[in-house]
Amino acid sequence: MPEYRAVREKHTILEICSHPELACQVTLQPLRRFDLDAAIIFADLLLPLKAMGMDFDFRQGEGPVIFNPIASDHDVKRLRRFDPLEELAYVLEAVRLAVRELNGRVPLIGFAGAPFTIASYMIEGGSSRNFQRTKMFMYQSPSAWHRLMDFLVQHLALFLKAQIDAGASAVQVFDSWLGTLGPEDFRVFVQPHSCALLREVSVAGAPVIHFATGIGGYLEEFSNCGADVISLDWRVDLARARRILRNHAVQGNLDPASLLGPVQVLLLQAQKVLQGAGSEPGYIFNLGHGILPDTPVENVQALVDLVHRSSVE
Amino acid sequence: MPEYRAVREKHTILEICSHPELACQVTLQPLRRFDLDAAIIFADLLLPLKAMGMDFDFRQGEGPVIFNPIASDHDVKRLRRFDPLEELAYVLEAVRLAVRELNGRVPLIGFAGAPFTIASYMIEGGSSRNFQRTKMFMYQSPSAWHRLMDFLVQHLALFLKAQIDAGASAVQVFDSWLGTLGPEDFRVFVQPHSCALLREVSVAGAPVIHFATGIGGYLEEFSNCGADVISLDWRVDLARARRILRNHAVQGNLDPASLLGPVQVLLLQAQKVLQGAGSEPGYIFNLGHGILPDTPVENVQALVDLVHRSSVE
Repeated sequence: MPEYRAVREKHTILEICSHPELACQVTLQPLRRFDLDAAIIFADLLLPLKAMGMDFDFRQGEGPVIFNPIASDHDVKRLRRFDPLEELAYVLEAVRLAVRELNGRVPLIGFAGAPFTIASYMIEGGSSRNFQRTKMFMYQSPSAWHRLMDFLVQHLALFLKAQIDAGASAVQVFDSWLGTLGPEDFRVFVQPHSCALLREVSVAGAPVIHFATGIGGYLEEFSNCGADVISLDWRVDLARARRILRNHAVQGNLDPASLLGPVQVLLLQAQKVLQGAGSEPGYIFNLGHGILPDTPVENVQALVDLVHRSSVE
Repeated sequence: MPEYRAVREKHTILEICSHPELACQVTLQPLRRFDLDAAIIFADLLLPLKAMGMDFDFRQGEGPVIFNPIASDHDVKRLRRFDPLEELAYVLEAVRLAVRELNGRVPLIGFAGAPFTIASYMIEGGSSRNFQRTKMFMYQSPSAWHRLMDFLVQHLALFLKAQIDAGASAVQVFDSWLGTLGPEDFRVFVQPHSCALLREVSVAGAPVIHFATGIGGYLEEFSNCGADVISLDWRVDLARARRILRNHAVQGNLDPASLLGPVQVLLLQAQKVLQGAGSEPGYIFNLGHGILPDTPVENVQALVDLVHRSSVE
């Protein structure tokens, strides 16, 4: 969106995140343009890293670079314990501002990274293709791995509950890179921690959405984790997923790339998703991952219109 | 392996591929060191591109770069038709040399890229994260897309059958990047072409192995494609996959990253795979994707020993 690019010309992502007024403004931009049903707070899943003593930045075209990645149990033990109410107060303030601006028109969704995905950045030092370092760390130093995951769960739980206290109507936990793991590694190294986080946050009373990609091969495992809503990518058959996840609400499933094509193709693909979702309640329309750069604004508009027409029918 | 690195110090990947003696030598290297049950011809899935008039090279750490990628139907129509018996004679000669050297001790497996995966390189101009250009091409120019896929199927079928004629006991079709597509795009844009290729090659009488990654969300769809053996990555539950694919032999499933850990972890993970495979015949032990750099040679040895002990039991 041009209005987002205008802000980004003047500010880095981290600058926007750390200034509540800017973060609030960017959070509300999509709602000014589109008739959306919810807003999600503008933040970055790496923000907690600064608070725990890790230094990182975003490099043009490369994604995040962490300058002091975790390489040993010693590094894990040296992580700084912190109080999200203080160290991430700027995110909580952005939540409060956005909730006030929205004034009950649509709910605001808070968010945080899931422990596996955050740990993978901390160990890889940035984005990764094969997550080789993360897996070696898990396999070679399982007790350090579990210590790191416990540390993250404790702090992320406080952070997410604080967002709910600040007015978020729901929170979404992003396990963006979980799909690099097979089902057995998920069970052994991740599931206990994800479950602990999701259950702990559920106590706060707001719905918890668990987002992951690439987990079509073990949806059954993934579902036993305490989330209220499961957010799926586009690489699963939605009708099959709804059968497997029948105790959960489900969101997602549209390939963000389908917004790049002609509008007729987009609408056809969105209709396929809606058909796959079926008539049972408990499906929330959404993309299967973040919107891609170069997505035409008019395609987003056409998609929002289609989904609203379908919901009314 | 040091012996492979020694060859690579003197020759590029394309030099090895284009010199049958070198390609044969590298093909046999793993068999000299490990007690393996099959060899796979050393080649690159982009080799047919040169024959069809596309220029590419491998850049250090970046993977392949295609200098004149496909951007329009015009580009597709200009692709040069070629006879694999002539233009890829060097691969066929490497197959003949390797078969002669192996002298019936173990079978040699031929290989080619699958049409979707090759097309994605031709359109993206190299590796890709989101396959944005490929999907836009499919959505915006479906007739050009299907023309490109037909072109690839025709030439790849001839190439694979020629490898069988040259002595390959089986062929493997690599659909490495298929997992970027959702089930509906797979059905509409890829499945008819993959099926056409696999069925056409089956006529030659040798088993056909279809390899893909990231397709755990629509294994059922994937299985209706005419392959004899389906090669899975590690992100699927093998026991579940074998139930879904009960009409097929299955191979793969060990995470290549598990070879990076301590040998006890590796053996535990390999045993889990063997347990998942169950006692029904029709499972071939293999990794779920290519071996990773920095894999210790002694771990490969320990894995081969474990698998052989388990097969005897």
